[in-house]
Amino acid sequence: MSESIVRHHRGDFLWDDVALLRYKEDGAAPFRDVTRQVLFAGDEIPAQWRYFEVARGGFTTLERHEHVHNVMVLHGRGECRVGDGVWPLAPYDLVRVPPLTWHQFRAAEDSALGFLCLVPTQRDRPQLPTTEEREALGAGTRRAAG
Amino acid sequence: MSESIVRHHRGDFLWDDVALLRYKEDGAAPFRDVTRQVLFAGDEIPAQWRYFEVARGGFTTLERHEHVHNVMVLHGRGECRVGDGVWPLAPYDLVRVPPLTWHQFRAAEDSALGFLCLVPTQRDRPQLPTTEEREALGAGTRRAAG
Repeated sequence: MSESIVRHHRGDFLWDDVALLRYKEDGAAPFRDVTRQVLFAGDEIPAQWRYFEVARGGFTTLERHEHVHNVMVLHGRGECRVGDGVWPLAPYDLVRVPPLTWHQFRAAEDSALGFLCLVPTQRDRPQLPTTEEREALGAGTRRAAG
Repeated sequence: MSESIVRHHRGDFLWDDVALLRYKEDGAAPFRDVTRQVLFAGDEIPAQWRYFEVARGGFTTLERHEHVHNVMVLHGRGECRVGDGVWPLAPYDLVRVPPLTWHQFRAAEDSALGFLCLVPTQRDRPQLPTTEEREALGAGTRRAAG
């Protein structure tokens, strides 16, 4: 019983009884050095609460989908692209990714980036940008923003 | 636009564009020194993501309800009572409060306790224990547990 009520943090953003997972299957979409852990699976609340860790220099897939993301940074530094904007990220910053909006999370070159991400349990598959869309977004360049 | 996409942490577990709220209306139920902030309101994901801060020596209401809580400690130390058990809490520990289970969060005497708490958007009202139920739980005593 105690296992299912309280799961202690073991250090380094790993938890008792929480599996360290691949972010996505390799080759499904471009990304670098990201892990995923499902903290609460959404059986009783129709939302899945996950933790993602992006190693320094790593990044999540640039994608969009109908469902939203509610995000809180837990540790490290980096930035997020959401739509046309790029924002610096530090611990406890909050990010809302609206529906059908291109987004990507990047760790800094000298720091990992760990963040919580809430999604609805029922959700659509991510869409990937075409080459033209990717170029229009300036993805691959790094811009500073307020 | 940038306000609604990214809300930066301003320090001390306060955020841009997030209101610091009363935990509950005074007198509605027993508690001490707790504040509440709604980080994501659940318009698009049917869950509300809140942050609670319990000052040192403070505690939330001992209560139960049909809906569950999914909790992550963000900072500080304390303990949680869930059903018959009491667990020590430290940063990033995860707590699941099952349906209709008595629960209470307490900060340590020498440390605040800050935690994230996810609930479904649609939820029932909390029930308070009778005097007999409170005594049966041993509430008011402080027990150490693993």
